[in-house]
Amino acid sequence: MSTPEQWLQALQTDIDQNAYGAYPAELYEPIRYIMSLSGKRLRPLMTLMAASLYTDDWSKALKPAQAVEVFHNFTLMHDDIMDCAPLRRGKPTVHARWNTNTAILSGDVMLIKAYDLLLTVDSNRLRSILVRFNQTATEVCEGQQLDMNFETRWDVSEEEYLNMIRLKTSVLLGFALELGGMVGGADEDATRLLFEAGVSMGIGFQLKDDLLDVYGDPAKFGKQVGGDIMANKKTFLLIEALERARGKARADLDYWLAADTFDKEEKVQAVTAIYDALGIRTLTEQKIDEYFSRGFDCLGRVAADPTRKAPLLGFVRQLVEREQ
Amino acid sequence: MSTPEQWLQALQTDIDQNAYGAYPAELYEPIRYIMSLSGKRLRPLMTLMAASLYTDDWSKALKPAQAVEVFHNFTLMHDDIMDCAPLRRGKPTVHARWNTNTAILSGDVMLIKAYDLLLTVDSNRLRSILVRFNQTATEVCEGQQLDMNFETRWDVSEEEYLNMIRLKTSVLLGFALELGGMVGGADEDATRLLFEAGVSMGIGFQLKDDLLDVYGDPAKFGKQVGGDIMANKKTFLLIEALERARGKARADLDYWLAADTFDKEEKVQAVTAIYDALGIRTLTEQKIDEYFSRGFDCLGRVAADPTRKAPLLGFVRQLVEREQ
Repeated sequence: MSTPEQWLQALQTDIDQNAYGAYPAELYEPIRYIMSLSGKRLRPLMTLMAASLYTDDWSKALKPAQAVEVFHNFTLMHDDIMDCAPLRRGKPTVHARWNTNTAILSGDVMLIKAYDLLLTVDSNRLRSILVRFNQTATEVCEGQQLDMNFETRWDVSEEEYLNMIRLKTSVLLGFALELGGMVGGADEDATRLLFEAGVSMGIGFQLKDDLLDVYGDPAKFGKQVGGDIMANKKTFLLIEALERARGKARADLDYWLAADTFDKEEKVQAVTAIYDALGIRTLTEQKIDEYFSRGFDCLGRVAADPTRKAPLLGFVRQLVEREQ
Repeated sequence: MSTPEQWLQALQTDIDQNAYGAYPAELYEPIRYIMSLSGKRLRPLMTLMAASLYTDDWSKALKPAQAVEVFHNFTLMHDDIMDCAPLRRGKPTVHARWNTNTAILSGDVMLIKAYDLLLTVDSNRLRSILVRFNQTATEVCEGQQLDMNFETRWDVSEEEYLNMIRLKTSVLLGFALELGGMVGGADEDATRLLFEAGVSMGIGFQLKDDLLDVYGDPAKFGKQVGGDIMANKKTFLLIEALERARGKARADLDYWLAADTFDKEEKVQAVTAIYDALGIRTLTEQKIDEYFSRGFDCLGRVAADPTRKAPLLGFVRQLVEREQ
């Protein structure tokens, strides 16, 4: 048995050793750059942990795990262009540091490299893993398109929002776990449960992001509390408020959403007060609990040795309890 | 045995029936749009013809052939963004008709769909086909990056240029033939020769494009003769001229390359005269012959029934003899 620290170390070494390519340098330098920005490597860690449920030889899941991380960073590189984001993890984004063309083309190569890394799996699992990866990758793109569509709509329903975050962020967490299971040798029931666990947890994590942005403890929360409110970002909280607000609450909410110039703190306080009055906080907390419970329920039903399950359960519990 | 017309018909039907996806429409509509712009389907036809060298059941090569066409159109969609191209085959490009974000994201999905279509091949060939596809796809991106790099350089050598067009346009033709061979059941020698034939032919085609843009018969040439000269496009002819021009010829060439305002016809005539004086036309024709001969030599050495080879050879000969 190994510890999460050993897995992370092995993964980091493997990522650092991958040069992706040499010539032309303009194509490969941005890939090494984005892969070196210190993410938490959550997704590939989950792949290693899921593989470890069924095998001591988790090192054979290193390259597939890296495929998930490379794919994830490919989506970040292209999403940052689409969102005109200047910074990623405190550093200039690829299109900002180089240019848009470079970010498009280096991203394209990353998607191909993700497939390359997946080709390391056993032949008897290759096709089924690629079928699942293709479906996941397609859904992530669908989620990004929906997210962009929703920016200009004010009638997004709860169901539409939950479906969008499921596609954009959660199916990849589900696939990360499922992939580990498949590489480790899990049966069909277990891989399905691992996928469902990842998806439910992923939706819970995204909803918690939305919640913490408003109700997080400023001392613990990494970003400025209220950022989403200032930017009119269509979060779960705003969508619920738009569905529920009537009379003066609705008029107040519309006022703040339409205001071109405003005191930032005043807007955050006012919108938070509307959320409070509508019971949005409790509603969101209940939804988060619901998804986390569903996720833990699925993990509980995964047929695997309890000792082997402990690190994965501990790791997920830590993520669930984070306050930043 | 089937005829090229039957192959093209079957291919077109198969392409028309592929919806790629439904929701969100914004993601899939641009894919159907670019796939419907009437290209000549050269690459997938080559895949079908190569498969037909070894099997009557060429229909099993339809989906893999379509993968090549979808991949090719993915590169067009992204290249058109990078080149700021307003038109493609006389119609608005995807980023012009929709927007850049749509062209990035729909292109990403197309790359994934290409892999989906490749997953239809027999299991015993799956890994080797994907290894070859990944290498080809990566090289096409490398070629595009080199092409962009060369735009701002005036010291590109013949060797660098030939390598760039090999990567950007020729390896995919090579892969199209190789893939057909692999799906049809060719042995390793034959698939290697098919690949090399496609690469040599592809370089020949690109050099012929460069040549016809200057020396094409205006009555037969589809575009305006001299377009590359007007735009200072770094073609094989210009690169050879830059390597060879001395004294007055070099001064004249530099003058026309630096001229901001000029009479279009006068520039085309003047630069063509410099090419004539330097023997660039003959030099380019010799190079084209060299690559075409190498291509036909490889095709000749492919071990297959001569009757089965006839349609492919006829098709390639037609492409070689085109004057537009």
